[in-house]
Amino acid sequence: MNIVLLGSGHVATQLGRSFKMAGQDILQVWSRDKENAEELASSLASESITDISEMVLSADLYIIAVKDDAIKDIITSLTLQDQLIVHTSGSTGLDILDGVSTRTGVFYPLQTFSKKKAVDFRQIPIAIEGNTPEVTEIIRSIADRLSEKVIVLHSMQRRTLHVAAVFACNFTNHLYALAQEILKGQDLDFDLLRPLIAETALKIQTNDPTSVQTGPASRHDNNTIKTHLELLQSNPDLQELYSKLSQSIVNLNKQL
Amino acid sequence: MNIVLLGSGHVATQLGRSFKMAGQDILQVWSRDKENAEELASSLASESITDISEMVLSADLYIIAVKDDAIKDIITSLTLQDQLIVHTSGSTGLDILDGVSTRTGVFYPLQTFSKKKAVDFRQIPIAIEGNTPEVTEIIRSIADRLSEKVIVLHSMQRRTLHVAAVFACNFTNHLYALAQEILKGQDLDFDLLRPLIAETALKIQTNDPTSVQTGPASRHDNNTIKTHLELLQSNPDLQELYSKLSQSIVNLNKQL
Repeated sequence: MNIVLLGSGHVATQLGRSFKMAGQDILQVWSRDKENAEELASSLASESITDISEMVLSADLYIIAVKDDAIKDIITSLTLQDQLIVHTSGSTGLDILDGVSTRTGVFYPLQTFSKKKAVDFRQIPIAIEGNTPEVTEIIRSIADRLSEKVIVLHSMQRRTLHVAAVFACNFTNHLYALAQEILKGQDLDFDLLRPLIAETALKIQTNDPTSVQTGPASRHDNNTIKTHLELLQSNPDLQELYSKLSQSIVNLNKQL
Repeated sequence: MNIVLLGSGHVATQLGRSFKMAGQDILQVWSRDKENAEELASSLASESITDISEMVLSADLYIIAVKDDAIKDIITSLTLQDQLIVHTSGSTGLDILDGVSTRTGVFYPLQTFSKKKAVDFRQIPIAIEGNTPEVTEIIRSIADRLSEKVIVLHSMQRRTLHVAAVFACNFTNHLYALAQEILKGQDLDFDLLRPLIAETALKIQTNDPTSVQTGPASRHDNNTIKTHLELLQSNPDLQELYSKLSQSIVNLNKQL
């Protein structure tokens, strides 16, 4: 299969590598940024382009893997016919590709990517969608080459999954960062928290998160909560987050 | 070494098991709850007591491992002389043990415990403190038998570590729970998020969290943020948390 990759960021890089390793050809890498395009293209043994009018029209698959905001810019300069084109965005509907081609779809790998760290795609869920049942099946057969966890989701489900992922990944990582900030105030090393963070994520691999919730809020330990809020008083933002998240734990407990 | 364990919850259970495996004797397990005391005592081949007046006074170490709120209740009924006594609370000062004995300390293992899941204590940081340098050294030698990561912290540092741990562990687990709630709304399985959660925690084992922050807020993708807030509009609490955490990501970015 011949692929054109539109984008050169984290997702484009990891997808490009994984398709390459799965034996597919990446014909071209497009990026507005010449250096980025060249860097990724050279690692994939493909051609780099910065002008979208130089894009070949003979590929089997066109993958748009750019920031959500930038998808619109790309498709206004794209004129395909029946070539299969997909975007990789969790929060963008399939309909953004209406009119770009007669065969459109979504290929959303649910993982946090960085350029450097290679990931094992076999375990990464890929949420797919096609504009017709046939297109869906073609995309499924492509996704099956990379991952054991391919799932067909319509745009609303995919958006929901993306919001949930923001909570479980982006916000979680930010809590790690806030914890590090808190430690810095007493010259304590973030290393102290790393085993705890690993165990917390490990626990929910085989449990429901609500069943393993611990901490002052879950045991209604209001004295400790008060002590903690006093300790955070030099930072009203942290104090507010502490209150809101503790309250949210109490509220969810009540619902269950 | 002979140990008396005051408490029968998650921390008492894991500490008791680990001391037992390290070859120490648990003489007695005390708990207000008879059944809990008996259950833990039998697994540690020790005696169970529910009346603190039956506590032996000949042990080398007394460990208070109960809810923070309950520490005060216990020590009002305790009359020791120079027996070594420690509590295991992150957010309670050493001074709560003033007057209970001439040798007091803190033994705070930084991990999230459950009764069922055994943990490898070797990698768990233990923050210790003693009321004199000699007591600190004795506690250090005891902690060294369980963990490779023993650190001496004064009460203020330990409290700070505990607050940071609430962010990195308790609040993080709650975000997993919220993500699961969000998925339920579209009949999506939490399994979809498990690889992402594992990778997010793995990434920061070798990176600073700020350097691997991803997501709409960190890339100032306001369209996606708006889409997500609309999607959460049926749940104002989730909407507010989404806003606050996104704003907090932006704020921390600015500081760095």
